[in-house]
Amino acid sequence: MRTVIARDGDVPSILGRDERPTPLTGGPDVVSAIADSARAALAAAKAAVRDVAAAGCAAPGPLDHMRGLVHDAPNIPGFRDFPLADRLRDALGVAVFVDRDTAMAAVAEAVAGAAKGARDFVYVTISTGLGGAIVSHGRMLRGATNTAGEIGHWPVGLEGPRCGCGSYGCAESFAAGRNLAEAFGVDDAARVYAAAASGDARAERLVARAERALENLAIGLTNVLNPSLIVVGGSIAEHEPARTLEPMRRGIAERAFKVPRDAVRVVPAALGRDVGMLGAAIAARERSSGRGEWFL
Amino acid sequence: MRTVIARDGDVPSILGRDERPTPLTGGPDVVSAIADSARAALAAAKAAVRDVAAAGCAAPGPLDHMRGLVHDAPNIPGFRDFPLADRLRDALGVAVFVDRDTAMAAVAEAVAGAAKGARDFVYVTISTGLGGAIVSHGRMLRGATNTAGEIGHWPVGLEGPRCGCGSYGCAESFAAGRNLAEAFGVDDAARVYAAAASGDARAERLVARAERALENLAIGLTNVLNPSLIVVGGSIAEHEPARTLEPMRRGIAERAFKVPRDAVRVVPAALGRDVGMLGAAIAARERSSGRGEWFL
Repeated sequence: MRTVIARDGDVPSILGRDERPTPLTGGPDVVSAIADSARAALAAAKAAVRDVAAAGCAAPGPLDHMRGLVHDAPNIPGFRDFPLADRLRDALGVAVFVDRDTAMAAVAEAVAGAAKGARDFVYVTISTGLGGAIVSHGRMLRGATNTAGEIGHWPVGLEGPRCGCGSYGCAESFAAGRNLAEAFGVDDAARVYAAAASGDARAERLVARAERALENLAIGLTNVLNPSLIVVGGSIAEHEPARTLEPMRRGIAERAFKVPRDAVRVVPAALGRDVGMLGAAIAARERSSGRGEWFL
Repeated sequence: MRTVIARDGDVPSILGRDERPTPLTGGPDVVSAIADSARAALAAAKAAVRDVAAAGCAAPGPLDHMRGLVHDAPNIPGFRDFPLADRLRDALGVAVFVDRDTAMAAVAEAVAGAAKGARDFVYVTISTGLGGAIVSHGRMLRGATNTAGEIGHWPVGLEGPRCGCGSYGCAESFAAGRNLAEAFGVDDAARVYAAAASGDARAERLVARAERALENLAIGLTNVLNPSLIVVGGSIAEHEPARTLEPMRRGIAERAFKVPRDAVRVVPAALGRDVGMLGAAIAARERSSGRGEWFL
């Protein structure tokens, strides 16, 4: 987990930070660790809790951002329908606003990054997993129970490898870092891309299949949502644009409907590794002041 | 093409109708034929143009419903960026509101059919083609240039048959009536389902593959949009629910995320063959009175 202390502004500026492992021993330990991390980041920024107006927390989904409830965190036993926002507020003594990490990233890119001014865009992250968030008509698309936006889990193959979500054929199962690394039998997707680049045929097949899955994802987003931008972030997109953003652009150019194809651009995310933290800071500011309507 | 004359009401009641072939000889001939059809339907209803408050026109996409412009109608030469609403208004002497047939159907199901009261739902039609419309947060999802909702063209296979849209692997390419019939070498998808039911192995393989494509579509809609309802209409869905709605339900039950899976129901459309006509009548009433904001 990472914590930052940010001074408000159009783009919040980071004054202090802390990073530590996430405990895997249940909700209360996670809450304590976040609180400790926040205090360490405050100390690094030479600030105190009383200086903090509000806190934002980006968490993996599925969660209910309105109630601050994390439905499920598969990697942390006991983290089921856990009231993370309330527990963090009790631990920190400030109001806390929780949202999905990808929604926080989309907020940041919309306010201060690559999606500035866009009313219809999709944020995609290609990293350990593959996720995103959808902004439609100037609002975050939330759905009936606030879990919309799991774009990595639209199945893009009739067959395909088993996915961490329990399904198979999801875009994530073909193209996310964890899945590529597991399929190749290594611990880091960077090694799969490196092997493919040096001519390893098995690695090349896996990467080419990931490209086809990303093509399908980009075409589907374009035809179904007609966005003006697809903003692509995450460590794999950042390091391998020729094998992520490029196939997405190629798929759209060759196979999407003309009108939405002409309307959309696939662009890299602008805010880098801190995007979720910046989004959390912006969300805390907007929601605590009652101005966050567009992403609620 | 079909025309109906409807008396206004919560559910418009149909007073007269006309049906005739769509001319394939360009926009002006289509406009004349629609106007003739409207006059015949008026005569059948013992009414005159002066009795008509407004007209709605459901057309195949892609089109711009705000400008009443049909971008492309592949089956009609010369129908490209054609100002259908303006030309029809000139021919009929009443205000005309154009929208995509699937958007009109969604409007009807929302106001008077299976989606009454739902704020987040997807309308799906499985017929000659496979299309739909998305309602999110109580609004029709339109996208940046008003073409959103082409859910039949999210690719659900990494390989797959060529699709009418120029791509391949689209849900439509596996599961729409025209595509099933062509793949089996007959002129009507009903014959493919009949052959499958009587044990023909090739037909069964095609229908089973269509089921898997519909599973992927339903799972994708559930995970990405988190709707409370997926309303499924169209002639194939109506005649073959066990091989369309059932696999969609099964796919969601077995492979979608828990929270959106628990939130969604897959239900048959309620309004039958006239759904687009009823939607056009409702849209004409709402848009002419300035109350159509939710679907604009």
